[in-house]
Amino acid sequence: MKVNGSHFETIWLKKNDHRVVQIIDQRYLPFAFRIEDIATVDAMIEAIRDMHLRGAPLIGAAATLGMYLALLRAPGDEDIDAYIDKVASRLKSTRPTAVNLAFAVDNIVCGIHAQKGHKAKTAWALEAAMQYIATERLNSIKIGEYGLTLIEQASRKSGGDPVNILTHCNAGWLACIDYGTATAPVYMAHDRGIKVHVVVDETRPRNQGARLTAWELRQQGVPFTLVVDNAGGYMMQQGMIDMVLVGSDRTSPYGDVVNKIGTYLKALAAFDNNVPFYAALPSSTIDWSLGEGSGETPIEERGPKEITTMEGLAGDQVVEVSIVPDDTPVANFGFDITPARLVTALITEKGITKANYKQIKRLFNEENNAGSGL
Amino acid sequence: MKVNGSHFETIWLKKNDHRVVQIIDQRYLPFAFRIEDIATVDAMIEAIRDMHLRGAPLIGAAATLGMYLALLRAPGDEDIDAYIDKVASRLKSTRPTAVNLAFAVDNIVCGIHAQKGHKAKTAWALEAAMQYIATERLNSIKIGEYGLTLIEQASRKSGGDPVNILTHCNAGWLACIDYGTATAPVYMAHDRGIKVHVVVDETRPRNQGARLTAWELRQQGVPFTLVVDNAGGYMMQQGMIDMVLVGSDRTSPYGDVVNKIGTYLKALAAFDNNVPFYAALPSSTIDWSLGEGSGETPIEERGPKEITTMEGLAGDQVVEVSIVPDDTPVANFGFDITPARLVTALITEKGITKANYKQIKRLFNEENNAGSGL
Repeated sequence: MKVNGSHFETIWLKKNDHRVVQIIDQRYLPFAFRIEDIATVDAMIEAIRDMHLRGAPLIGAAATLGMYLALLRAPGDEDIDAYIDKVASRLKSTRPTAVNLAFAVDNIVCGIHAQKGHKAKTAWALEAAMQYIATERLNSIKIGEYGLTLIEQASRKSGGDPVNILTHCNAGWLACIDYGTATAPVYMAHDRGIKVHVVVDETRPRNQGARLTAWELRQQGVPFTLVVDNAGGYMMQQGMIDMVLVGSDRTSPYGDVVNKIGTYLKALAAFDNNVPFYAALPSSTIDWSLGEGSGETPIEERGPKEITTMEGLAGDQVVEVSIVPDDTPVANFGFDITPARLVTALITEKGITKANYKQIKRLFNEENNAGSGL
Repeated sequence: MKVNGSHFETIWLKKNDHRVVQIIDQRYLPFAFRIEDIATVDAMIEAIRDMHLRGAPLIGAAATLGMYLALLRAPGDEDIDAYIDKVASRLKSTRPTAVNLAFAVDNIVCGIHAQKGHKAKTAWALEAAMQYIATERLNSIKIGEYGLTLIEQASRKSGGDPVNILTHCNAGWLACIDYGTATAPVYMAHDRGIKVHVVVDETRPRNQGARLTAWELRQQGVPFTLVVDNAGGYMMQQGMIDMVLVGSDRTSPYGDVVNKIGTYLKALAAFDNNVPFYAALPSSTIDWSLGEGSGETPIEERGPKEITTMEGLAGDQVVEVSIVPDDTPVANFGFDITPARLVTALITEKGITKANYKQIKRLFNEENNAGSGL
């Protein structure tokens, strides 16, 4: 998508030096737009864990390129297969909830082991990573096209008035390679002259809505309003929201949606007010091993500083302030589970499906396939 | 309640100078504990509007003392009754949603007009304000005693394990005169050795939970955990919450609860997970003129800065930082409406009642009574 008018994706090989990966370091947005060079798998692990980049599709891509960087700089004195397994395990432990990452790593490791010799393994890793990225880019475009039909419907219903779309967290292009998941239909509608207005949840504690989604939408010229996470229920009661559109970090084949903490509350309010609730996701987020309800999903708990401190601009300096005493006892759960009964439909790269096992399975016609193209 | 071991209430006449009102200036908590002198009705209007103090019962008390200050310093050259009406109207417009304020002002104005002469009016205003304060203090104690029975029940059910109580915003003693509404049962339980653990919602955008409720609970030694507003749904899904206990800014005789924005989302989650949802309120918050659903309640919209900026400590300085660009479009609704069907019971100074017209009316046995004791 556009950043100050130029086209960017979220992750790419450095021009003229394909031994280095470059990413948008999302920690500085919206205050500064910074590109980070990542030359080692250790740096990539840190970037994923400390959320220089985030979003289920993107951390899958980052992990595959992390494997490539690991092979590029593999120590000569170690058993290469043991080294690969060790690196894979470290990559997989960076973020436990989004399933793309674990699938992407498992898939690429399998392929790497099948190649003979360090050079072939490295070449294969790069090829697989680029393939993963191409697939996720295409997934976003397809999700956008399918989701667009829902926005077109809503626009006809509203007689051409702006379609008010509530979104939570950032399921935008910054969470993917390009276009996004939940935002892809929004960008396509906007490009085709359909009036949309996005209500952006702040998304405490890391404020991905306020910092990333609002920034993205502004860069593309899409009208939006920022609200606190508490506001969505009231706005649905008042008829100010036409649909809720979110992403997913892990989706069960029964249609349960594991997504950023607070999503479940919005789904409850949508259900209570007859507002359609859609989750937009590439099939790489579907975990076919999950049972009904997704209760076995590991829910990431993050550190207290995300809650006790806040970053912002004082003059032209970015400073961190303590918003409560540093020793305040906190709990910081990263995700919640929206049960399928509250989900109107899933928007995937294969089409739109009701959130139930029969229809999801029919759409994908197979199990145990992460759909990543690897 | 206790502040650093000494007993405080939220509003009082200055010792040795009853022409001045003193309040805890809540804007500085938890970073600093400051007392503010308020000598004029203009200063009181500013204190209410800019939230030096807040909370439905407390702003009612502040408004009555504001009328007293207005009379103390009434201009000699103006018609006193016209002046009183003008001041009353200004006080009532400071905060539109909480009903106590309008009721308290209307009641006191009626009484002031009935008195003859400036001196008698002033004396009557002070007496009525002190009576209002005494009534609200007593209401909190009674709410605490009734609510305690619910915590005792939950404690028996949990076999003496801590009762986990989720609360939203600050319905603590800082919102009242003393004890609080939602917190009164908690303090009473804690004092009697019943194990309680309060899960405190941060309560964006003004963070009254993080800044005020957490501070209060810590001062009284009550165990608590601070969470973001997004977390409550997940915690209820996981069985980490035994009851939700909130206050109310305006309550319909049908049992609908107008309270801080985000309350409705917690009520939906409580209902979905079979967690009891209680609103604790003095009858001064019941608006007998409201119809079913409370749709006619004016919902306050506040300025964008509450969302775009954040206050915190940098070193030992309190600084304000911009957490998104200052020109970000925002909407800032102050309250939402929790429909009676989601409310397990109301805890009032007259007892516990189901949230329906018949039982609420039976408990109070009258309509059109603000219950303020004036």
